[in-house]
Amino acid sequence: MAVATQSLEELCINSIRFLAIDAVQKANSGHPGLPMGAAPMAFVLWDRFMRYNPKNPKWFNRDRFILSAGHGSMLQYALLYLTGYDSVSIEDIKQFRQWDSKTPGHPENFMTAGVEVTTGPLGQGIANGVGLAIAEAHLAAKFNKPDAKIVDHYTYVILGDGCNMEGVSGEACSYAGHLGLGKLIALYDDNHISIDGSTDVAFTEDVSGRFEAYGWHVLHVENGNTDLAAIEAAIAEAKAVTDKPSMIKVTTTIGYGSPNKANTAGVHGSALGNDEVKLTRDNLGWEYEPFVVPADALKHMGKAVERGAGYEAEWNQAFADYKAKYPAEAAEFERFVSGALPDGWDKVLPTYTPEDKALPTRKHSETCLNKLAPVLSELIGGSADLTHSNLTELKGIGDFQKGQYQNRNIHFGVREHGMGAICNGMALHGSGLIPYGATFLIFTDYMRAAIRLSALSLAGVIWVMTHDSIGQGEDGPTHQPIETLASLRAIPNLTVIRPADGNECSGAYKVAIEKAKHNNPTLLAFSRQNVPNLAGTSMEGATKGAYTVFDCEGTPELILIGTGSELSLCVTAAEKLTAEGNKVRVVSMPSWELFEAQDAAYKESVLPKAVTKRLSVEAGASFGWHKYVGIEGDMVSIDRFGASAPGGVCMEKFGFSVDNVLAKAKALLG
Amino acid sequence: MAVATQSLEELCINSIRFLAIDAVQKANSGHPGLPMGAAPMAFVLWDRFMRYNPKNPKWFNRDRFILSAGHGSMLQYALLYLTGYDSVSIEDIKQFRQWDSKTPGHPENFMTAGVEVTTGPLGQGIANGVGLAIAEAHLAAKFNKPDAKIVDHYTYVILGDGCNMEGVSGEACSYAGHLGLGKLIALYDDNHISIDGSTDVAFTEDVSGRFEAYGWHVLHVENGNTDLAAIEAAIAEAKAVTDKPSMIKVTTTIGYGSPNKANTAGVHGSALGNDEVKLTRDNLGWEYEPFVVPADALKHMGKAVERGAGYEAEWNQAFADYKAKYPAEAAEFERFVSGALPDGWDKVLPTYTPEDKALPTRKHSETCLNKLAPVLSELIGGSADLTHSNLTELKGIGDFQKGQYQNRNIHFGVREHGMGAICNGMALHGSGLIPYGATFLIFTDYMRAAIRLSALSLAGVIWVMTHDSIGQGEDGPTHQPIETLASLRAIPNLTVIRPADGNECSGAYKVAIEKAKHNNPTLLAFSRQNVPNLAGTSMEGATKGAYTVFDCEGTPELILIGTGSELSLCVTAAEKLTAEGNKVRVVSMPSWELFEAQDAAYKESVLPKAVTKRLSVEAGASFGWHKYVGIEGDMVSIDRFGASAPGGVCMEKFGFSVDNVLAKAKALLG
Repeated sequence: MAVATQSLEELCINSIRFLAIDAVQKANSGHPGLPMGAAPMAFVLWDRFMRYNPKNPKWFNRDRFILSAGHGSMLQYALLYLTGYDSVSIEDIKQFRQWDSKTPGHPENFMTAGVEVTTGPLGQGIANGVGLAIAEAHLAAKFNKPDAKIVDHYTYVILGDGCNMEGVSGEACSYAGHLGLGKLIALYDDNHISIDGSTDVAFTEDVSGRFEAYGWHVLHVENGNTDLAAIEAAIAEAKAVTDKPSMIKVTTTIGYGSPNKANTAGVHGSALGNDEVKLTRDNLGWEYEPFVVPADALKHMGKAVERGAGYEAEWNQAFADYKAKYPAEAAEFERFVSGALPDGWDKVLPTYTPEDKALPTRKHSETCLNKLAPVLSELIGGSADLTHSNLTELKGIGDFQKGQYQNRNIHFGVREHGMGAICNGMALHGSGLIPYGATFLIFTDYMRAAIRLSALSLAGVIWVMTHDSIGQGEDGPTHQPIETLASLRAIPNLTVIRPADGNECSGAYKVAIEKAKHNNPTLLAFSRQNVPNLAGTSMEGATKGAYTVFDCEGTPELILIGTGSELSLCVTAAEKLTAEGNKVRVVSMPSWELFEAQDAAYKESVLPKAVTKRLSVEAGASFGWHKYVGIEGDMVSIDRFGASAPGGVCMEKFGFSVDNVLAKAKALLG
Repeated sequence: MAVATQSLEELCINSIRFLAIDAVQKANSGHPGLPMGAAPMAFVLWDRFMRYNPKNPKWFNRDRFILSAGHGSMLQYALLYLTGYDSVSIEDIKQFRQWDSKTPGHPENFMTAGVEVTTGPLGQGIANGVGLAIAEAHLAAKFNKPDAKIVDHYTYVILGDGCNMEGVSGEACSYAGHLGLGKLIALYDDNHISIDGSTDVAFTEDVSGRFEAYGWHVLHVENGNTDLAAIEAAIAEAKAVTDKPSMIKVTTTIGYGSPNKANTAGVHGSALGNDEVKLTRDNLGWEYEPFVVPADALKHMGKAVERGAGYEAEWNQAFADYKAKYPAEAAEFERFVSGALPDGWDKVLPTYTPEDKALPTRKHSETCLNKLAPVLSELIGGSADLTHSNLTELKGIGDFQKGQYQNRNIHFGVREHGMGAICNGMALHGSGLIPYGATFLIFTDYMRAAIRLSALSLAGVIWVMTHDSIGQGEDGPTHQPIETLASLRAIPNLTVIRPADGNECSGAYKVAIEKAKHNNPTLLAFSRQNVPNLAGTSMEGATKGAYTVFDCEGTPELILIGTGSELSLCVTAAEKLTAEGNKVRVVSMPSWELFEAQDAAYKESVLPKAVTKRLSVEAGASFGWHKYVGIEGDMVSIDRFGASAPGGVCMEKFGFSVDNVLAKAKALLG
């Protein structure tokens, strides 16, 4: 076909296609196939339905869009460019996948304004979308009034076969169906090609049937390549069904327009090659040079700017009216969106003395959560079906359920990975919510990809992990963390805190709440078993990551470094060693990351370089501890899998006893 | 009801129930609810269908049974005891969940004969079951003859709501449906209770509809509490459908028989308490003391011993006939089952000299796999939809598909976690298969729970992980491992190998194959990008974990320690430093675990304690490296997330260059 015969819609859609084709070709890296096939649905969605303001990508009430099939990132960059976002210029598109560009290989919310969440690891995006939709539903239930809807937007997701094969998407979509999240609309790019070739080789299930079983409203657009009217009708129908999330299966051809590579895996993850780019231009009648967009297309799609300004102005007026009528609610809403914490919020965090009852740190966590819940109405979360083990219920605050979206106790079900991605989505809604997700520490293994993404994509989530060692006991090695703390500490930008008692739990929550408001996640590790409240601990000390809780006069001969439930062993051992005339210090080290963030002088004051006799005591792997105990130091640790027995027996058998700490300490003292 | 009125079946079923009730009560820990509700289906299955030999739990052709809902472990221990396994005595049951008992909190195949796989982390068991069924299908296709079926067994799984909520089960069951694994039969204990209470709070999907969408044959037993005939009919019907896996939803009452706790979460994970135990005895008319099984029940269920001996004798005769007719096949079968490797198998592994072309180590991996495939017909595996990136295809060997079960290239789809659990199941089939599963190294995060279980449960799997650093390039931080190597090295009993070139790849496979045959997993990390073949490398050196590849005369002043793609930077830097008159050694350290397994003298010879100036160079987190570089050493590492750019640019920008290695080395030399 010749250009002259192209409709305005075709011009726009082909502009998306060729921006993707040309950017991938220039980078000689990337995935052109999805943008080429999904351009029509994306065009219809962004041009005819989505409400957003390109000049203010963070406008609160915007519809959210997620490209869950993140490898097709050029689709999203093309849309951002064409609709007038300042974040993606044509020069940025030419820098696709280059160092420090705004157009990285996969969409990254922290690099590119207009990108809501970071996708690429498959299945995460749709699960984040469930989180965004939960956030919207909750805020709408909380703030909207019969005469004023200030929270009212849809969440749209484009996902592919890969996303639908991943378990995390299944978990999250099952839960979305349970919750009846009617404003979540997923467009499934059904192109029946994945990297290994036809989905016939591995994925022949009835996806629509599965989503129906989840309780979704399911639609099918048979010709997603050219039938824009059908796409439009389907999205309209999806929007109209408000009590169920909608999944629109849009059957497309991957690499549509490429004469030799369309409908093959060859177009999935590689540049077309110069020859095929030319043939595709010929085939689609595209006479424009690379990176040149026809003026009509740019003009048409650029109307989003004016539309968006209108949407925002309309909302601003609505919010002004709301504020006039409901000043208290409006103030709270504004505080939420600003990311500010209420004055004095941390005063509710309790402190303890040694006279206070020994309790599991998970119990202290419960106390903190319940003290915080009334003052921080943005605190919302729950457990992956271990509510009464994790002790994460906000009492008297009600369950978040279909029709009860104003409540704040979320029952995620036995869906750790889904929970993780949902929490990330809630945080990245950008509305000040502080989501928390809980399970046993060992099951961070199930949700590790989501935890990593919280750290990478700056999602201010609190991960509440209990049963943090072999002290877990009878459940045995499948449930006992060994290497888990080390594996989490190794993740960049994740703060791991393992408090030793009540004061340190309060300190841990103080840090976690503040970090959440600054878009950083924190992982808290709590004991199943009782621990005493110690004389030397403090909230303030805990916030520094490591501090002295027991000391001698002058320079110590030996430093015992303990974390969590093992700190009390160190203190008892130190008392005995001191009584025997040794100069011993005990350092509590609830968080490596917080300690590393302190200045050199503070670090030296806690762990003086001159003191090389150091013994760490932690019911976990030795892995990583050499950093703090050095070559002359030693560790009480466990470098094998645990065992099923009462927790106290496990601790004793694996050497977490005062006697063993004393023996190792004395060996160091010589 | 009075005991006198109990049928023999009821006696047996109540024996299971009360063994569970009493063991949990004595331990004051455990999950009585599932065994109480699932006892009828378990009884029917073990008494009327399953073929096994209690006196030879490893009899090859036994039906496999998996309790995917592993928290109900007492169900399985009761069955093992009642049917006459020597591994579980009544004394063992009294030691439920105690130190070193045969009856740990969750079923552990390495502790208790008769337990096929380790369950407890939910969803793993059903996915392992898919692996067992794949192993059976493959071996049947490979060894059976029209006149001789020596491989012919079913795989039965009992799973619960928790398993069905987990994404890993969804992935594996979708794939099982794709493959049409007709001899996989899952009994879903539909008791609508999980730890948080009624499944109404989180899990209201139509599970049967979902399994139908997966392509399963789905049945429903409406009264799983007492309708044994319906259970029997359903299992018989499931067996009769041979082209689809079957899922039998068996609706039951959790904690059946407990007057006050049945059908509540209270009976899920806690002992009933003495009062309720008594009331349950009254309610079910159970007059026996704790741990006393009525003689009639013991006698009836003990008939499994005679039946089992008969099954095995029959099979032994069939195998003798097979051996007479098909001696070559029988010899191969016997070798498989023995776990032996063919003589000289490792001679096919290639060696290289510096004159050989620089290649990515993933390419060397492909060469090794393809050299090994003809000599090791037990090698079977594939990728999670990255076959041509991971380079894991066994060429000319065909795809494992429905009706093509004799083939060995498995397309797992984009289902990393399912792949992991499936590979574990294949390994734990105990038939000598060496399964391998591949994806990008970063996506070990998606399957970490399965990798951990391979290490814990002694599953001889080879994990083939490519794109092992920021050298991955353009895909960006979501796809670039940083902390990944550290997080894997921290797992007990997992050997991680990151080879530097062709020779080390061959060494890595030599280790991995041998470890697989000894029931230990290995994780191999390969580069996307080219690496040169180095002069000092060797297969043998690689198998020791660390060894000298470049040296000086006498004691070195400085040791550079490199792994994988960074080793060549160390060698080049060392050559320059040597030319400048420094005494420098380069140690290649492909595997920490293999090095730690060497004797002290060897370790000292490679890394002499006296040499404290050490510099490690690895394109990954510094986490853990202090163990080898000590307090005086330094590291070239990356402790932030990566970035999207060509791989060479990333390496350079993040300091993985000869210049930066030289600068850091010189700083150490002073």
